[in-house]
Amino acid sequence: MQRRRLRLGMVGGGQGAFIGAVHRIAARLDDRFELVAGALSSDPERARASALEAGIARSYADWREMARAEAARDDGIDAVAIVTPNHLHAPVATAFLEAGIHVICDKPLAVSLAEGEALAKLAHSKKRLFALTHTYSGYPLVRHARELVERGELGELRVVQVEYAQDWLAEPVETGGANKQAGWRTDPALAGPAGCLGDIGTHAYHLAAFVTGMMPRALSAELHTFVPGRRIDDHVQAMLRYANGARGMLWASQVASGAENALRLRVYGTKAGLAFDQEEPNVLWFTPLGGAAERLTRARVASPVAAHATRVPAGHPEGYLEAFAQLYEDAALQIDALNEGRAAPAESLLLTTVDDGVDGLRFIEAVLKSSAADGRWVDIEGT
Amino acid sequence: MQRRRLRLGMVGGGQGAFIGAVHRIAARLDDRFELVAGALSSDPERARASALEAGIARSYADWREMARAEAARDDGIDAVAIVTPNHLHAPVATAFLEAGIHVICDKPLAVSLAEGEALAKLAHSKKRLFALTHTYSGYPLVRHARELVERGELGELRVVQVEYAQDWLAEPVETGGANKQAGWRTDPALAGPAGCLGDIGTHAYHLAAFVTGMMPRALSAELHTFVPGRRIDDHVQAMLRYANGARGMLWASQVASGAENALRLRVYGTKAGLAFDQEEPNVLWFTPLGGAAERLTRARVASPVAAHATRVPAGHPEGYLEAFAQLYEDAALQIDALNEGRAAPAESLLLTTVDDGVDGLRFIEAVLKSSAADGRWVDIEGT
Amino acid sequence: MQRRRLRLGMVGGGQGAFIGAVHRIAARLDDRFELVAGALSSDPERARASALEAGIARSYADWREMARAEAARDDGIDAVAIVTPNHLHAPVATAFLEAGIHVICDKPLAVSLAEGEALAKLAHSKKRLFALTHTYSGYPLVRHARELVERGELGELRVVQVEYAQDWLAEPVETGGANKQAGWRTDPALAGPAGCLGDIGTHAYHLAAFVTGMMPRALSAELHTFVPGRRIDDHVQAMLRYANGARGMLWASQVASGAENALRLRVYGTKAGLAFDQEEPNVLWFTPLGGAAERLTRARVASPVAAHATRVPAGHPEGYLEAFAQLYEDAALQIDALNEGRAAPAESLLLTTVDDGVDGLRFIEAVLKSSAADGRWVDIEGT
Amino acid sequence: MQRRRLRLGMVGGGQGAFIGAVHRIAARLDDRFELVAGALSSDPERARASALEAGIARSYADWREMARAEAARDDGIDAVAIVTPNHLHAPVATAFLEAGIHVICDKPLAVSLAEGEALAKLAHSKKRLFALTHTYSGYPLVRHARELVERGELGELRVVQVEYAQDWLAEPVETGGANKQAGWRTDPALAGPAGCLGDIGTHAYHLAAFVTGMMPRALSAELHTFVPGRRIDDHVQAMLRYANGARGMLWASQVASGAENALRLRVYGTKAGLAFDQEEPNVLWFTPLGGAAERLTRARVASPVAAHATRVPAGHPEGYLEAFAQLYEDAALQIDALNEGRAAPAESLLLTTVDDGVDGLRFIEAVLKSSAADGRWVDIEGT
Repeated sequence: MQRRRLRLGMVGGGQGAFIGAVHRIAARLDDRFELVAGALSSDPERARASALEAGIARSYADWREMARAEAARDDGIDAVAIVTPNHLHAPVATAFLEAGIHVICDKPLAVSLAEGEALAKLAHSKKRLFALTHTYSGYPLVRHARELVERGELGELRVVQVEYAQDWLAEPVETGGANKQAGWRTDPALAGPAGCLGDIGTHAYHLAAFVTGMMPRALSAELHTFVPGRRIDDHVQAMLRYANGARGMLWASQVASGAENALRLRVYGTKAGLAFDQEEPNVLWFTPLGGAAERLTRARVASPVAAHATRVPAGHPEGYLEAFAQLYEDAALQIDALNEGRAAPAESLLLTTVDDGVDGLRFIEAVLKSSAADGRWVDIEGT
Repeated sequence: MQRRRLRLGMVGGGQGAFIGAVHRIAARLDDRFELVAGALSSDPERARASALEAGIARSYADWREMARAEAARDDGIDAVAIVTPNHLHAPVATAFLEAGIHVICDKPLAVSLAEGEALAKLAHSKKRLFALTHTYSGYPLVRHARELVERGELGELRVVQVEYAQDWLAEPVETGGANKQAGWRTDPALAGPAGCLGDIGTHAYHLAAFVTGMMPRALSAELHTFVPGRRIDDHVQAMLRYANGARGMLWASQVASGAENALRLRVYGTKAGLAFDQEEPNVLWFTPLGGAAERLTRARVASPVAAHATRVPAGHPEGYLEAFAQLYEDAALQIDALNEGRAAPAESLLLTTVDDGVDGLRFIEAVLKSSAADGRWVDIEGT
Repeated sequence: MQRRRLRLGMVGGGQGAFIGAVHRIAARLDDRFELVAGALSSDPERARASALEAGIARSYADWREMARAEAARDDGIDAVAIVTPNHLHAPVATAFLEAGIHVICDKPLAVSLAEGEALAKLAHSKKRLFALTHTYSGYPLVRHARELVERGELGELRVVQVEYAQDWLAEPVETGGANKQAGWRTDPALAGPAGCLGDIGTHAYHLAAFVTGMMPRALSAELHTFVPGRRIDDHVQAMLRYANGARGMLWASQVASGAENALRLRVYGTKAGLAFDQEEPNVLWFTPLGGAAERLTRARVASPVAAHATRVPAGHPEGYLEAFAQLYEDAALQIDALNEGRAAPAESLLLTTVDDGVDGLRFIEAVLKSSAADGRWVDIEGT
Repeated sequence: MQRRRLRLGMVGGGQGAFIGAVHRIAARLDDRFELVAGALSSDPERARASALEAGIARSYADWREMARAEAARDDGIDAVAIVTPNHLHAPVATAFLEAGIHVICDKPLAVSLAEGEALAKLAHSKKRLFALTHTYSGYPLVRHARELVERGELGELRVVQVEYAQDWLAEPVETGGANKQAGWRTDPALAGPAGCLGDIGTHAYHLAAFVTGMMPRALSAELHTFVPGRRIDDHVQAMLRYANGARGMLWASQVASGAENALRLRVYGTKAGLAFDQEEPNVLWFTPLGGAAERLTRARVASPVAAHATRVPAGHPEGYLEAFAQLYEDAALQIDALNEGRAAPAESLLLTTVDDGVDGLRFIEAVLKSSAADGRWVDIEGT
């Protein structure tokens, strides 16, 4: 029998936002959530209109009020999706955790490491789910890649090459106010001190960490702003050192003319290499040392972790929304388990946690520090 | 303000079925339908269990009863999704049309041209929506390809090459009963007289017709069954002649070892050629005569018809489920219009109709006839 | 110790020709031939100028005279390369065979089956090498593909899909005289009765036959001329039946806008499929039934037949000229053996023979016959 | 009329060598050189046997003697190809320059910057050609890429990403003596202080410099040796800063499991980006900001510089040997001009010079220096 649909609330994601609509589709896709409440905008009128448009029954003008009110209802929300600009992630998450409500939060976790660590502490003490939506870890073949590494199919890892290139900020589109996305993402007051670094650099970092199971021990980095007048970085390059001796490079850019959403990872070990390109997510390349590349496909790879994250048969492409939906599916499995006081099913545990978010913030702080010190190698704290 | 979610029923699609689950996700994805009733299996117990699992409130053991009962309710279904084996498409659709309920039906339309023509006549007389789910016409870039042809960007069309290759029936997987899909799809009593031809050959045919805006005038074809003991074709090849002098080839096979779901179309005109591969649906290739290929991408192509069928920005891949959802989205737009007695919005009109289904049956009959006559060129009736 | 360079003559290939220059590079590349004599044009002045430009010592105004004179010299040519328009292949080859000179001849072998059969008979009786330059069989991975089939890696063959698309004749470029290539290739008096069919259809046919080791038993075909005023076909489509029950399709077109030189072969057996694209000749795809595609590369595939035809290591691309050179290399190995009265080395025996050329003419005649009979299935004689 | 073939000598490249055979084919391909003399090995017997095998008339046991003797002959060599291990490049080149003989030398130019600068000074004073065989700059599309940058089609350059990955040294194949290539390339006494850096890092550096027309102003780098016991680096990563504010990354590895010869360059400017992959050299990708990628192909791109470096029509792939031959072709054009006291034709001037070789050594020294200083940013001297 189908389980009860979980009741979901949303903070942020009003008209003109991109990621709010994505969360709504993702929450709906596997039919485990019902969106019933929202504080979609800090502007009360816009909040109401956005909620109506999204078919949300209960609209709040203020997220603090929403946390309070929903916690008080018998049919209050089980979980909240936080899709605001970055500076509000931690305050909003704190309010809902305090109210005993599970949290599904967009990345980056917070705008400083200290803020993130406090949040992690709170989440652990409250025993509520805290899921961070690092979308790309929802792809079946990303999970399979992780499995291949874990099973030793690549041997000892030696080289990590990860990159994330876009071109949508190649020009000063944030000026004038027409592009709401560009506006807040290049405003340090809303996005935090990291621009391209926080927006997509963290995705690159997380993807590499997720697949390799390793975090770099140290890095040497350089932030740069290409577009005149921009108040935040739009380009980051870094060299990485891992504890086992592996080396790596990370590049993220929002001024790479012609690039759409080119997140790519390559990992090389003593026995084999693999490659994944987010823009072709139904394919994973695996190449043994000296051998022929194998083009592994989503639904043909014999992999329970991939199968868990797949919906349609071989040759029927899944995409970004399905990867995102997978995070919601895993969140639902974990929330059910938490609500029922039992261990969550193993296959749901690849979901990104609040601790992963803290790791991401450590990465950000190390890059900021190294870049400020002209690329000096900086240890990544706590890893 | 968001429109009322339409109430959807489903016939077929019980446990073990593939396409039923796909329809359910597709109906849900854009939030225009709510699945409230179903006759998911002819086995009453299985029907009930399947409905429970799918979270469907009203379960019926019989679709005739369902049509009657739903028509009688104030909150009865607006539309029914028919996802049974082929031989039931026409009887079920007839019952629901008679009851005044809109129909969204899997392809092929029916198991004979006569049956299909009667159904079309009924649908027209009842003024209800009849949507046939030729999934691949829901892809934004397939719609854009059609637009490019229509705008004359290819010049006069000369050559059409379409193919659909799979390998899942390369062995006699229908024996033994374990593979329910293979079972009914290779059983003429359930699938009709056309096997591979009806299952995927019609998709290839429809894709070519949809993009080129042309149906062949005549064809020379050969059906073949490779797997010993199989009661139906698993391979079809055909040559095509078009009224304007264009030539074409169509190939569909379910024994093409290594092929997953390789539906591909190439069209060549006097000015340019284009190519689309269903397994990489976020890309469309356009190459001018003597020039460089352009790699058009889903969300970068300046195209209202593509934009209408897209949800996420450039570089965020959409896939099969989104294409399928597009058919439901367009169906909702048309049903709203029909219910309100106004013209449907132009962007919804690319949805496959019952008449397209009849054309597909004409193609099937012509192939059967030509193949029986050792490949003699056969006119396609009525076009 | 290096063997003596063989002395090569050339008939045809004067200024403005394409294939003559290719033969000259190919003959030189592996350093087994020295071009010392030529009758490069039927125009004496042009012949002389062309020879000078190509650095050829002995220039003849007439190929009959050349055959005679070279046969009489102690240091006369060992072999002649025939690169004239098609109608001269047989007469020229006959003259040089009669003079006891080995022949390397461009395809198609002749302009009629009868002419080709006579030539084959002569070649056999004279015990001279007769090599037909079906270039694409010189690619290492084409040879490896053949090996995979022969070793049974694909299982029993079921489906053959071969095509050759170009766009250089999409417009009437043969008019006006500026395009010498287009001129003779569309003139039945020079090219023979088959246009696109003879020019590239035969390459497609040969590639399929070479790799599969099978010739079709029967075919149903249709020739077409798209460009108004053209005197010869520029498009051919055919369905194929093989003796073992396999089915196939062949398509060749010179009006496929956007296509450069797109010769592609796919073969599917009961156990696996393979795919080769002439425009990416350093890669061969091999995909087991239900499995992951393997991207086999030229110098990594463990294959003596591929190794024999390769010069540089993995990742250093070889191309068309190297494939062509391979035919000359194999010809040299066979000529050495013939001159020394011993068996030619096994690895040289994949070189296309005069009998393969006769098979190609049988294919051409069958297509002409079937097309004239509105696509009736026609047996391919003698196979 | 064809020009006189230039007489070529060779130092190095005896049996078991890779690059010697490549130079011989490359020199022969366009028929502008005749290999007549050689000192192919420092072992006299091996030198003699190698020369015989390569069909070289005059074999020397010592390159000093060869320089002397050839300079003294009326029919002495015009040019010498130096294909020894790195440590001999400068001594051999010096001897032949002193003898007035043109030099075509493998890269890197020398084993130290000082040695290279002395050589450059000598070459300039002697007014002899000094060509350095940076093969990849011989590709037509690499030259066209340079042209696109120069013409401003990319706008102001912002980002350079270049990499060169191989896997042939992923294991300690240099031990045991069986792999001659691996032996000298990992021996600092023969290869110089830079391993992977000198062997392929310099190719990556040169490709980026050639296409962008810019050399980095400073770099931060890290060398690494992965294979235990290896005496030289097998991996290098670097971050780059350019004078105009552009940023870049360079990665070269010989332990990247699965990589064959993956030299890839991407350049992004304010208006467009481009990408080239040495393993698919017949294609160049050009993508305008926000637009669709164009797949430019070798013989379809309207480009005199590409046309100059191409032999066969569109769709007939050229490869590594043709790129290499292009360097010889350009060298021949320049030698003819030097011999005749006139300016060399413009289209031949893209040939890599001794000064480019010095730039490459500056890059090597900067990497060595930065790596030794834990990645400190180091200015690249003299640029």
